[in-house]
Amino acid sequence: MKFIIQRDQLISSVQDVMKAISSRTVIPILTGMKIEAKQHGITLTGSDSDISIESYIPAEEDGNVNIEQIEEGSIVLQAKYFPDIVRKLPEKTVEIESDENLKVTIRSGKAEFNLNGQDAEEYPQLPKLQTDDSFEISTDLLKSLIKQTVFAVSTMETRPILTGVNLKLADNTLTFTATDSHRLASRKIPINDTDIEFPTIVVPGKSLNELNKILGETQEPVEINVTNNQILFRTKHLNFLSRLLDGNFPETSRLIPDQSKTTFHVKTKELQSTIDRASLLAKEERNNVVRLTTKENNVVEITSNSPEVGTVTEDITVQIMEGEELKISFSSKYMIDALKAIEYDDVKIDFTGAMRPFIIRPVEDDSILQLILPVRTY
Amino acid sequence: MKFIIQRDQLISSVQDVMKAISSRTVIPILTGMKIEAKQHGITLTGSDSDISIESYIPAEEDGNVNIEQIEEGSIVLQAKYFPDIVRKLPEKTVEIESDENLKVTIRSGKAEFNLNGQDAEEYPQLPKLQTDDSFEISTDLLKSLIKQTVFAVSTMETRPILTGVNLKLADNTLTFTATDSHRLASRKIPINDTDIEFPTIVVPGKSLNELNKILGETQEPVEINVTNNQILFRTKHLNFLSRLLDGNFPETSRLIPDQSKTTFHVKTKELQSTIDRASLLAKEERNNVVRLTTKENNVVEITSNSPEVGTVTEDITVQIMEGEELKISFSSKYMIDALKAIEYDDVKIDFTGAMRPFIIRPVEDDSILQLILPVRTY
Repeated sequence: MKFIIQRDQLISSVQDVMKAISSRTVIPILTGMKIEAKQHGITLTGSDSDISIESYIPAEEDGNVNIEQIEEGSIVLQAKYFPDIVRKLPEKTVEIESDENLKVTIRSGKAEFNLNGQDAEEYPQLPKLQTDDSFEISTDLLKSLIKQTVFAVSTMETRPILTGVNLKLADNTLTFTATDSHRLASRKIPINDTDIEFPTIVVPGKSLNELNKILGETQEPVEINVTNNQILFRTKHLNFLSRLLDGNFPETSRLIPDQSKTTFHVKTKELQSTIDRASLLAKEERNNVVRLTTKENNVVEITSNSPEVGTVTEDITVQIMEGEELKISFSSKYMIDALKAIEYDDVKIDFTGAMRPFIIRPVEDDSILQLILPVRTY
Repeated sequence: MKFIIQRDQLISSVQDVMKAISSRTVIPILTGMKIEAKQHGITLTGSDSDISIESYIPAEEDGNVNIEQIEEGSIVLQAKYFPDIVRKLPEKTVEIESDENLKVTIRSGKAEFNLNGQDAEEYPQLPKLQTDDSFEISTDLLKSLIKQTVFAVSTMETRPILTGVNLKLADNTLTFTATDSHRLASRKIPINDTDIEFPTIVVPGKSLNELNKILGETQEPVEINVTNNQILFRTKHLNFLSRLLDGNFPETSRLIPDQSKTTFHVKTKELQSTIDRASLLAKEERNNVVRLTTKENNVVEITSNSPEVGTVTEDITVQIMEGEELKISFSSKYMIDALKAIEYDDVKIDFTGAMRPFIIRPVEDDSILQLILPVRTY
């Protein structure tokens, strides 16, 4: 195998693929990165068994030459050193060559690295997913769906199914739902150009976080393919494959109250800053609990107190307050997470009493829903 | 005590003073920050017994009003919460008030914090240094002196005196020297406007690192005062006081070879990048050892090898090579630290054999000297 490649192209692909590579894996060859050269381009592959990422660099694209002097072949390189080496090479192009003894030479300018490779034949084959049952959404919309839900997955392995995000495609609607059983985040979008449906599946939160990091802010389409135990996200030059979680995701729709006893509208950022300040003194307390009290004249009071340190109080003026008086306590962290995910200037909050879950939604968009369970403080 | 202060001014002073405050201290009140209000301005004080910092905010300066409605008094506030509170307050001004029960109220906009303070009478008095025996240097020059030497202090507590930087003022020359016994960094500057001299003193490396962080890149003067066991750095609005280390700093002048058997000049950045690449494979080896070999035609070869991973070789063209052939091994980390500290484009390296310390100096400036002991690899 041999080729000469633009260093910047290689750096960016290597960075993407590294997101799937773990130094702690039971299959030793998976600590390496597979490099495969064909006349039409180079493919880099990394995997930790849960997530697999393939990044493709075409030899030519849009009239630009990315790779030259290609001799076909493949090799596996230790991933621990390769990214730093590529990043620090002196020239704009890099020559990579491997011989029959699996010795790899990396040259750039006067610098020459000689590394021990491993046989690419020993690298596990990635499952090939069928591309028939696929649908597309734009990259930036997929990133929004991930960001608005994935933070609510459970970090506890006691109920593994809750460490994933529930995806459902039915009636031309795609729904992402995550819950750690103290809060819930969900977002729906219409998918019009497809007949396919898939039953409820659960994608590990970790996979979606890594996918979000790799995808750029672009409107290019992502093709999504689901089988029994895998999901594939495919962009122009990237295949991102994740296993699914086994088990039944809890039915969450009945958690969501369909009536409201107290409602107000408020500026998202204003409430977020107020809650943030109120949580400052509660740093070490469990869950950073703050209390919200409705007052007259469209005023809501946010308070928190930490017996040893002191108290904090702040009034915030809300728009359109309706319904009963309310005193309720909740985790400031959950509230801040939810408000950050909203992505709209104004939110509507619906309460059904101090002991019942409450709902936060953008005033102008019912497709995003954040639910938080209050904390009992009396 | 009461005053209304510009929040940005307060934030910047609080950040400076926090550098002296540690949450782990044997004197509980030192986990707090002392605030003292006088009609002419506010003084914040923090200390961990080793370092003490006082930051002064004048009520008025250059026609701008920083502080209003001052009622004199003083209080000690828990430093753990105070910086975050001030940083996150909603408005541009902050009102701080304390009452006779040591209750402190912080108000900004509609936010109100009520904190428990401590009696400022219980806060230790900082020693007052005499200002007679002082000399001045510019802030940016002091920062250079620190950066060019402090990285070479020892991090091991086995020889505590080596964890500090040796300062000497004699014959109108100020010298900073640091060594961890494997390498040495030193810089001299002339001090013309003073008659004072002080014997060799040793300032903790940690103190100088904190001082460097607080001082801005400016040519404003810093006044330096030394007594038996303290050093005071004083700028317009800041007093930075550090204890000195007890003990005798080793006599280092005889370590420095006065002859050279092999010499070359080289571009600082080029050598630094080459050494950096050569060290990539040696990450886990002790000291990241690289080898330098002189070759014909003004070429120097840098190599490194890590039996399991592979080898790296790079030739670098040097200017003016004189003297004997040489093969020498040394820590890449020490070499990179030394080259980073040089601050000049071209360096001169003088070797006196593979087993003897070698010297790195800017070609155009003899006042900066970096010395490294080689590593035995045969």
